[in-house]
Amino acid sequence: MESGNARDITDLRPFFEPRGVVIVGARRSPGFGYVLPLALQRQGWGDRLYLVNPAGGELHGLPLYESVADVPGNPDLAVVIVPAEAVPRTLDELGKRGIGHVVIESAGFTEVGEEGRARQELCREAAARFGMRVIGPNCVGVINTANRFSTVELMEEALVPGGVGVIAQSGVFGNILLDDLHQRGVFISKAVTLGNRMDVDECEVLDYLHHDPETRLIMIYLEGAADGRRFLKTLRRVNADKPVLILKSGRTGKGREATASHTGSMSGEDDLYEAAFRQAGAVRARSLDELVDLARVFSTQPLPAGNRLGVATSSGSLGALATDAAVEAGLRLPPLDEDTTRRMRAIAPRWMNVRNPLDVGPSGAYLPAMQALMEDPGIDMVLSIVVMPFAVFREFMVRGVSVKDFMGSAASLREIAPGKPLVVCSIGDKGFVDDLDHALGLGIPVLHSPERAARTLAALHAYRAAREREAARGD
Amino acid sequence: MESGNARDITDLRPFFEPRGVVIVGARRSPGFGYVLPLALQRQGWGDRLYLVNPAGGELHGLPLYESVADVPGNPDLAVVIVPAEAVPRTLDELGKRGIGHVVIESAGFTEVGEEGRARQELCREAAARFGMRVIGPNCVGVINTANRFSTVELMEEALVPGGVGVIAQSGVFGNILLDDLHQRGVFISKAVTLGNRMDVDECEVLDYLHHDPETRLIMIYLEGAADGRRFLKTLRRVNADKPVLILKSGRTGKGREATASHTGSMSGEDDLYEAAFRQAGAVRARSLDELVDLARVFSTQPLPAGNRLGVATSSGSLGALATDAAVEAGLRLPPLDEDTTRRMRAIAPRWMNVRNPLDVGPSGAYLPAMQALMEDPGIDMVLSIVVMPFAVFREFMVRGVSVKDFMGSAASLREIAPGKPLVVCSIGDKGFVDDLDHALGLGIPVLHSPERAARTLAALHAYRAAREREAARGD
Repeated sequence: MESGNARDITDLRPFFEPRGVVIVGARRSPGFGYVLPLALQRQGWGDRLYLVNPAGGELHGLPLYESVADVPGNPDLAVVIVPAEAVPRTLDELGKRGIGHVVIESAGFTEVGEEGRARQELCREAAARFGMRVIGPNCVGVINTANRFSTVELMEEALVPGGVGVIAQSGVFGNILLDDLHQRGVFISKAVTLGNRMDVDECEVLDYLHHDPETRLIMIYLEGAADGRRFLKTLRRVNADKPVLILKSGRTGKGREATASHTGSMSGEDDLYEAAFRQAGAVRARSLDELVDLARVFSTQPLPAGNRLGVATSSGSLGALATDAAVEAGLRLPPLDEDTTRRMRAIAPRWMNVRNPLDVGPSGAYLPAMQALMEDPGIDMVLSIVVMPFAVFREFMVRGVSVKDFMGSAASLREIAPGKPLVVCSIGDKGFVDDLDHALGLGIPVLHSPERAARTLAALHAYRAAREREAARGD
Repeated sequence: MESGNARDITDLRPFFEPRGVVIVGARRSPGFGYVLPLALQRQGWGDRLYLVNPAGGELHGLPLYESVADVPGNPDLAVVIVPAEAVPRTLDELGKRGIGHVVIESAGFTEVGEEGRARQELCREAAARFGMRVIGPNCVGVINTANRFSTVELMEEALVPGGVGVIAQSGVFGNILLDDLHQRGVFISKAVTLGNRMDVDECEVLDYLHHDPETRLIMIYLEGAADGRRFLKTLRRVNADKPVLILKSGRTGKGREATASHTGSMSGEDDLYEAAFRQAGAVRARSLDELVDLARVFSTQPLPAGNRLGVATSSGSLGALATDAAVEAGLRLPPLDEDTTRRMRAIAPRWMNVRNPLDVGPSGAYLPAMQALMEDPGIDMVLSIVVMPFAVFREFMVRGVSVKDFMGSAASLREIAPGKPLVVCSIGDKGFVDDLDHALGLGIPVLHSPERAARTLAALHAYRAAREREAARGD
């Protein structure tokens, strides 16, 4: 494992672990300037908050300092939410006040053309003068779930600590992604929205997250690298240790034009990125849905020893759809081991075809099938498609039987074979799917697309294979 | 429009509009035999139900006839839920009782190998002897939402009448799909699960739905055609009038093996199907999620005049992802009309780039942007990505402002340009997304993937283009 740049890493720490935070642009009228101080108070940061607004007075029970110079104490981070025109001057004031780290949330810079570009250059000069580090502008900043520090207001559940580091280039998208992830069982360690990347870029953040003990994998939405060569090098280094999942837009010319006009980034030819991702062994998502499903699975499942998939399903059709997707993504479905076959035959109804995929039909033998596959020595990973018609689910409910009663022990399947990834797919009646999700707990992902479930397992295998190639090369 | 086979169509009617229904295998113990009579009573069929069980007695307040021969009245349809062994004899009894239409839900026929195959042949012979029409075996039968007749228990909401005809080859999958569709805004006219296709096959049902006034489009999950040549011919004829959306498994050898073992169907080489679908101009879905999204859009939106897409978005990144997917699927994003540009400039904040895709950012100008695109003469279809960070949504809620207050009138956008499809995409905080979905109503689909949203619009255009080619050929 190659070590990152130690200076850079220490350098970014105050963004995630500030001693105190100045909010320039706190205000009593609706907007981020109103809600952000309130959110930080709720998250336990009230005693380390310094609000600045020339009008003075109070907000949420805290004093509003009329200028940055009036701020007492020893804060090391500022969040800037003032109009674009006022940002260069604000940076100057922050520099004079000795604040070394700034998140600029304001928009109106390179992404809006010539005038904005000039304004961003003024900001860059001001920051350089004082040696300040800047995230943004045109972003929503950072999140650290461990200490509940966030420069963006999120739902309580979004602050539940997890192992996924998030890098998003754009602010709105980053915010939407963070609103979405916890709803889909993905919990984050730290997140950064980069915005226009006036200073801090994806490479520095990748290195920071690489060395962050809370972060086990990194997901990144990218429109274009700030520096292609450096990005590839960083990606390769980081991905050799922690999986990097990438969603990149700008595959088409029109898509590239679209990105250029909103974060001012040039995305370049997609072929080059595709080659770079492949070379680094990073995992590229085909779609936003796939990115989130990949994060769900990579953050909870081990890497498989090989590409041999076992499928158990209560719907033959869904099993066939998953099988197609798995085979197309490079997985194999080997025949079941003799012992597995014998065990399943002993409990299976006559009509059940004991093979791989293993169609348990309406037998209800979900658990024995999953267990048999988890224990089969010829299987490296397991996909279990658990569906139940509403009519059957309803009858269980009427009789007071819950999903937990017959699937609750599934959570322990994870322990049978610690090295085998296990992914469950369920669709149909929402009541059943939600109960199932709850019964299986956070350790077993329940995805809602048979095709994506199969592809995430294939991605685990592809990632491991790429990492081994990389390790062999490095030896 | 070529007329279908009139005999066939009349012939299937009792499956959907029975005079009376015999349930052979009604019973007091848990299972379909218990819940189906109850569900049919709830749906208003209690006075036309005849339950058969050799034990006699009562169930749900209805008499249990000891044999089919004892059933009074004039029923013309039977649903058979007895064990496989008893099915041939039951068919014989039904034939003698003069019942011409039978749904066999029981499993244990060709899908379980030699013994089952022999049993299915006995059934075929019995049906042929009496000229009976049979759906199944190994299925969950039919649904007709117009008269609330269903041989499978579904949630109340699944019986809300809509324009989508559903054909699913397998019973469990069909049932799961029907449990799922209403939750995603897809409402059905009629549905058939074919099972082992001992008699009625997908071609006959396609023809029936083709002539069914309630059905505006057809979605079909297929593992293999009963007769490839006839299927292509039927598909072509039906698809020229009503869109046929197809999800087919068996793209890979392993996937084909999987289907062979559960509905006993041979799916054949996928290339042949792909060519057939293309020749017929039918719409092939890449995944189950895409099938459902396609159904949602095709059932509510008109066909576009051309391939010119206008995108409005409150997240530049999501706009870029959608743009990539749209361009890859054959759509164009032309520059905006001069008038549209002028109108947007007049209301847009300075920082807004007035172009296509139109990134309205956090301006909140969702509605004016959608309206401008709907009215732009150079745009054939509109995709609007409406996302709102939780922090902003929460502030609205705190202030008593609902999504309906600022998006409620969006429903009327559908009327501005009756010939232009309009699709909305939203992700992020579930509270916002659900409120948006509700505010827009059923006429404007809210999808949850920018890529699939773009591809469904491309599919509308591709379908129209294929239909026009077909019409030109037919002239």
